[in-house]
Amino acid sequence: MSGILKGMRVVEGSAFVAVPLAGMTLAQMGADVIRFDRIEGGLDAGRWPVAASGQSMFWAGMNKGKRSIAIDMKHPRGREIISELICAPGEDAGLFITNLRVRGWMDHETLSARRPDLCMVTLSGDRHGRPAVDYTVNPSLGFPMATGPEGSTDPVAHALPAWDCIAGNMVVSALLAAERKRLRHGHGSAVDLALKDVAAAMLGHLGVIGEVEVNGISRPKSGNALYGAYGQDFLCADGKRVMVIGLTDRQWRGLQKVTGTTEAIAALEAQLGTSLADEGARWEHRHAITEILRPWFAARKVADFAQAFEDAGVTWSQFRNFKEAVAEDDDMSLNNPMFSELDQPGIGRYRVPGTPMAFSHDPREAPARAPVLGEHTEAILGDVIGLPDNEIASLFDAGVVKQGKA
Amino acid sequence: MSGILKGMRVVEGSAFVAVPLAGMTLAQMGADVIRFDRIEGGLDAGRWPVAASGQSMFWAGMNKGKRSIAIDMKHPRGREIISELICAPGEDAGLFITNLRVRGWMDHETLSARRPDLCMVTLSGDRHGRPAVDYTVNPSLGFPMATGPEGSTDPVAHALPAWDCIAGNMVVSALLAAERKRLRHGHGSAVDLALKDVAAAMLGHLGVIGEVEVNGISRPKSGNALYGAYGQDFLCADGKRVMVIGLTDRQWRGLQKVTGTTEAIAALEAQLGTSLADEGARWEHRHAITEILRPWFAARKVADFAQAFEDAGVTWSQFRNFKEAVAEDDDMSLNNPMFSELDQPGIGRYRVPGTPMAFSHDPREAPARAPVLGEHTEAILGDVIGLPDNEIASLFDAGVVKQGKA
Repeated sequence: MSGILKGMRVVEGSAFVAVPLAGMTLAQMGADVIRFDRIEGGLDAGRWPVAASGQSMFWAGMNKGKRSIAIDMKHPRGREIISELICAPGEDAGLFITNLRVRGWMDHETLSARRPDLCMVTLSGDRHGRPAVDYTVNPSLGFPMATGPEGSTDPVAHALPAWDCIAGNMVVSALLAAERKRLRHGHGSAVDLALKDVAAAMLGHLGVIGEVEVNGISRPKSGNALYGAYGQDFLCADGKRVMVIGLTDRQWRGLQKVTGTTEAIAALEAQLGTSLADEGARWEHRHAITEILRPWFAARKVADFAQAFEDAGVTWSQFRNFKEAVAEDDDMSLNNPMFSELDQPGIGRYRVPGTPMAFSHDPREAPARAPVLGEHTEAILGDVIGLPDNEIASLFDAGVVKQGKA
Repeated sequence: MSGILKGMRVVEGSAFVAVPLAGMTLAQMGADVIRFDRIEGGLDAGRWPVAASGQSMFWAGMNKGKRSIAIDMKHPRGREIISELICAPGEDAGLFITNLRVRGWMDHETLSARRPDLCMVTLSGDRHGRPAVDYTVNPSLGFPMATGPEGSTDPVAHALPAWDCIAGNMVVSALLAAERKRLRHGHGSAVDLALKDVAAAMLGHLGVIGEVEVNGISRPKSGNALYGAYGQDFLCADGKRVMVIGLTDRQWRGLQKVTGTTEAIAALEAQLGTSLADEGARWEHRHAITEILRPWFAARKVADFAQAFEDAGVTWSQFRNFKEAVAEDDDMSLNNPMFSELDQPGIGRYRVPGTPMAFSHDPREAPARAPVLGEHTEAILGDVIGLPDNEIASLFDAGVVKQGKA
């Protein structure tokens, strides 16, 4: 492996989205990321989607480029090995990310007694350590009641586990910040963050809390409209649907120009006695604007205007389902240097993304597949923990560890 | 400011969500983050939600804890000052994050000629530098067609700008990784990433591309159900709605036990000839499971079972709108040490989040408010660029820079 984090070693004890995503992100930046799992695999070993073989494509996606060790965590020697792994020497090691809530042998107090400069990032459900997942955090904080058709009162949860994805990337930042501090000041850190706090903070960052507390407003559903300015979806003559944006002044003027609605919008402004150059006015009068634009799109196929929109620099896109996106969107194709096609054991050959980050001095590498569970067990016991061959053999014989074969 | 990144100085040239969020995240971790804007403010200066005064609560949320300099970027001296600011000396400076696509005076080639070890992270719309925003990226990649009521064909876009929030946190990681490399190897980096690539990669990470390519399936809408296992929303006797999770085996058994449906589920399994201990089987038979659980919730108010659910460690939550979340959720209250109440000029006093990250050696500080546009112009010209007082005075006189007053 190459990459900007080459030489860094991170140990991961995890399941599901956020922390596996954090480890995978670090691995795709060049770190040697070792995920440890129970002999039978973690709680996410069979997470959907799965291939016909039963192999999880979710797991394969979240664990690309990592090394895997399978170990009996109920066995004292298994626990000892995991502790040694986390605390193994090395200036660029002693880094541990986890969402497992293990008190005692695997908590920061115990582990840092073994390696005082350990940097450990722990993600929990809520700040009290209670269980919470994206599917429960999201409803509790309000977004589903602000999502979906205007006027509807049915909550609509997002399909993307957005809070997990955000939290996972914050785990990466937290680890890099802790390691940065260690390099300069010598001490490690325990970093705690909770999925629900990540979401609660974002409500504040986006101005939603202010909107409630200062303006007394609970933002209602507004369909697919862009909140606070202009942006709307339109059905075209070919049955396809597009999204067009008039957020900035330039986008707003460009949208009128390319659809030939400048005069009609001016007439609307005269009728309203309001300038729609103000983004808030566009939001308040969005339905009237939409009525002007709707016939234009209804009369045209996407192919009729796509090139003109591109040439004019309109900010727009076409709605697609996942299959259409994979088939039709050039950014999802192998033309995008971020993607490679590779073989994943038990699943098959398909398109796999590397990191979206392109570093000038560390050329982006093709993504590496996910390991098979326990694929690197023997290697890790040797090269990281430094166990002699006969001890490794006896651990296999006793069933404390297991080797996986790709 | 204190915080784990204390001493680091980051310059930000930005607008809207992702890069401002990145800068704010770094500021809340202790970095001195300087955002520069045009004299009249950036493109996001009036982004909704806004207070009655017209002040943007969005802008206030995204720029907490930063310093602000307002400067005429069309003026050659203004450009020179921004270049000096970005490239100002200091081992922990020379860090620049931006989503402004400025060729020439503000691109990496030009700036790195002035400071060769510059670390610069640039976020663009798509990988070709074409405009793209969360509102257009999301439809093009398929999530709106997988969101909303089962059987519906209307696309439902998310209300949370999730891709922006993810990309913003990746900007943080990219900058920290680039600075880490600089510290060890002496050279800076240009890092490029595109919002659309961030989203396209996530489709792969989550297994969605494999589902299309290997299984030939475009995941359909499934309402508020947890995909691939069991999790569902239920309407209760008091009109409130809850989400309950049966993702792991423990959660699934716990849910049956606390609702007294263990026997009914066993009967369903016998009838189906299938074990629902398999998470995929729970997904496939979710409607039948839901029919068993629905009467239980329909007959009870949330208050009837909330404590029992907590005691049993059920993973669940109640749906709330934003107003209810701010009013009722203890994690959104000042009981959560992440929140403080503070005064934001032009807006008022309201609850504001600090960082969700708690570092053991760098106690979490109360969040700092956002600056007024140009609030630190004079200070920055003096303490960062080192201009003498008379030159600063002449810049103000010439209108090249402007001071804001809180």
